[in-house]
Amino acid sequence: MANEQELDSAVKLIRSGRWAAFATAEMNTPYVSAVAYAYQQDLSCLVLHLSRLASHTGRLSKNPHVALLISEGDDGRDDPQTLARLSITGLIEHVPREHGQHPSYRGIYLQRLPEAEPRFSFSDFELFRFVPGEIRFVGGFARARTFTGERLHHAAMGSA
Amino acid sequence: MANEQELDSAVKLIRSGRWAAFATAEMNTPYVSAVAYAYQQDLSCLVLHLSRLASHTGRLSKNPHVALLISEGDDGRDDPQTLARLSITGLIEHVPREHGQHPSYRGIYLQRLPEAEPRFSFSDFELFRFVPGEIRFVGGFARARTFTGERLHHAAMGSA
Repeated sequence: MANEQELDSAVKLIRSGRWAAFATAEMNTPYVSAVAYAYQQDLSCLVLHLSRLASHTGRLSKNPHVALLISEGDDGRDDPQTLARLSITGLIEHVPREHGQHPSYRGIYLQRLPEAEPRFSFSDFELFRFVPGEIRFVGGFARARTFTGERLHHAAMGSA
Repeated sequence: MANEQELDSAVKLIRSGRWAAFATAEMNTPYVSAVAYAYQQDLSCLVLHLSRLASHTGRLSKNPHVALLISEGDDGRDDPQTLARLSITGLIEHVPREHGQHPSYRGIYLQRLPEAEPRFSFSDFELFRFVPGEIRFVGGFARARTFTGERLHHAAMGSA
C-alpha cells in the first residue's frame, strides 16, 4: 500500500514534468516514443496533443491501451536506479474539436506548453485525454508501490 | 533516408545517455518502465541488468519484442518537441551467467554504471542484450528518420 507521502511524491513528480515516454502496442509488439503532456490539476487525466502523422497515433487509434513513464531527469548522480519514476497504464481517448471539453483541455495544454499554440491550427494535430488506471511508483532502488488512478486523483485533490 | 550527420547524432545520443524508457507488451497491452543501459561500443547491442522481480522482466520472458526510448533530457527549453530522441524496437535476449559473453557484457555494464556492482551478487538480477532492429530518430519538430540497427552499427563503427 502506498502511504500519503508516497502518493504526494507521485503527484509532485507528474506536476513537475512535461515530457514523458509514451508506449503503444500493436500485434503484441510495443513501441515507445516521447510526448509532451499537460494535466488536469486534480490528475483525473493527462492531456496530450498528437499528430495523426506520428506512428504512436495510428497505433492508439486501433488500441487505446497505452502506458506512460514519467521519470525524474538524470542528474548525473552515481546510481540512476535511485531516480524516482512512475509507470502509468490506462486508456487514451480522442477529444474531437466539437467535444464540449475541448476548449478546457486546450487551455490546460497551452498553459503548460504555450509554444504548442501554432500546432492547434495544423489539421493533423488532435487532443487526447489519458486516464490513469494503475500506477507503479518507484521512489528509488527497490522501493516500489502500486496504486490506482483513483487514489492518485484523491491525493491530487488534497494537494492543490 | 537518414544521412551521415543524422546517423552520427543518433550514435552520440545513445552514447551520451544511460537512462531509457523500456516498453514491453503482454496481451497487446503495453507497459513502460525506466532502465539503466550500457552499450557495446559498436552499438551492435545495448546491455541491461534487470531484476527477475521487476514487472518488465516477467513480460519480456514471455515476449522478447521490446522497445526503448532514449531522449535528450528536458532542459526547460521553450518547446520540448525540439528535444532529440530515438525510438528503438528490437529483440531482447537473456545472457545467462554461463554464456561465453557474460563477462564481457558485465564489464561493459560496470564500466558505464559502476554503482550497479553490488547487484551482480543478487540472485534475482540478470544480464540482457537488446539488439536494435529499427530506429526512429526525431531530431526535432517534424524532423524524423527511420533506419535499421545495421545502419546504426555501421555508423557507430565509423565514429569510435
